[in-house]
Amino acid sequence: MSSLVPLPQSLVPVLEPYFPTDEKHHQTNRPFVTLTYAQSIDARIAAAPGTQTKISHQETKTMTHYIRSRHQAIMVGIGTVLADDPKLNCRYPGALESPRPIVLDPHGKWEYHTSQLQTVCENGLGLAPYIVVDSNTTISEKDREVVLQQGGLIVKIPIIGESVQSVWTSLFEELVRLNIKSIMIEGGATIINDLLLHTEFVDSLIITIGPVFLGKSGVEVSPSASVNFKNVKWWTGVQDSVMCATP
Amino acid sequence: MSSLVPLPQSLVPVLEPYFPTDEKHHQTNRPFVTLTYAQSIDARIAAAPGTQTKISHQETKTMTHYIRSRHQAIMVGIGTVLADDPKLNCRYPGALESPRPIVLDPHGKWEYHTSQLQTVCENGLGLAPYIVVDSNTTISEKDREVVLQQGGLIVKIPIIGESVQSVWTSLFEELVRLNIKSIMIEGGATIINDLLLHTEFVDSLIITIGPVFLGKSGVEVSPSASVNFKNVKWWTGVQDSVMCATP
Repeated sequence: MSSLVPLPQSLVPVLEPYFPTDEKHHQTNRPFVTLTYAQSIDARIAAAPGTQTKISHQETKTMTHYIRSRHQAIMVGIGTVLADDPKLNCRYPGALESPRPIVLDPHGKWEYHTSQLQTVCENGLGLAPYIVVDSNTTISEKDREVVLQQGGLIVKIPIIGESVQSVWTSLFEELVRLNIKSIMIEGGATIINDLLLHTEFVDSLIITIGPVFLGKSGVEVSPSASVNFKNVKWWTGVQDSVMCATP
Repeated sequence: MSSLVPLPQSLVPVLEPYFPTDEKHHQTNRPFVTLTYAQSIDARIAAAPGTQTKISHQETKTMTHYIRSRHQAIMVGIGTVLADDPKLNCRYPGALESPRPIVLDPHGKWEYHTSQLQTVCENGLGLAPYIVVDSNTTISEKDREVVLQQGGLIVKIPIIGESVQSVWTSLFEELVRLNIKSIMIEGGATIINDLLLHTEFVDSLIITIGPVFLGKSGVEVSPSASVNFKNVKWWTGVQDSVMCATP
């Protein structure tokens, strides 16, 4: 089932303090949030909008699955889903259950029934997604049927025209109601840039930096204002550097 | 003379392979070029144009002076000079002589006689600069007088209207004629972005990444196309990560 290279064991103690615990979760009225992504030296997460770019080494790909194994849910935006058609499951050896995929798709653009994730779920290799759409968005009959049948959900909250703060507040309230205590947010750039400006919603930050420049036309992560982090810890692998921090 | 913190000794073997040697120099008809700068996670070298922003830790500041001690010249563009008014000397303990400052100032905007570097030279704490201007640029009498008196030079080459490639070719020819065998190029963004696209002029790359986001309005390093590097080595300090690589 898994074609991952082994997790570098030196990563384990570095990551551990940044993982969710029940104690940390109970300090807020929202899930524990880990923001994580891979970028180039010049802070690009893809070479061009709508494309998938390999930035990180195999061992940091394994790290991603290890981090997934430590969260109840993983979240991506619709841009990432349409660009990457990701499997959004956890292929880390020994992980008990894949996390719940949550896809933020305000306008309902995703044709779930044609996705790789749908096949993954059909084959019992991952959980069906919670698709988060705006209150006024209608999902196609076909997609609704498939997602519900597989145990997923359509979650409706006010998104379009709402402030970033209000959207995340509503979303996390819904997730708490659905008993999700921890979530790993993987992108894309819009979600990351928004959350970097609203670090009250973030508990941990884990960024992989690959030794490449993707160039000006790449998809950039840079918030609209400066942000400082603390409890900074770096780990270096064969090719990449990983930064862990807290807001 | 020096208020630098000690150099982390673990840095020494990491940096060594990226330093100029006579052998490496003789493989090209130009000086050995090390490109080095400090950036935020989001690839900004300053929070806003024309301003200086502290990004790196004291120990990586010491590293900068250590790297300077291993080069015959250090170079910056006029933007950096006007923003930072840098001393451009080497304060690394035990360094025999400061490197030669080279300032790329096509339009002759720098009022050298009012600069900190002028005072540094007057006090015998550094070498006078070679100021590189366009062939048709006139330097003020006052600045010419002071710079020549202190042992510096005004270097005229065709710059305005020339291609990036042609400017660097002319410049390096001049520097070889002036017997400069190695140069550390420290910025700013325009020079770095140009050279990242012309890695035929670059031998080593040493980038410090500080754990902060400076945000969208910062001064960005991202070339106009993607660039790969090899021989990548990371070093991690108290706060920063340093990446060394070769084109």
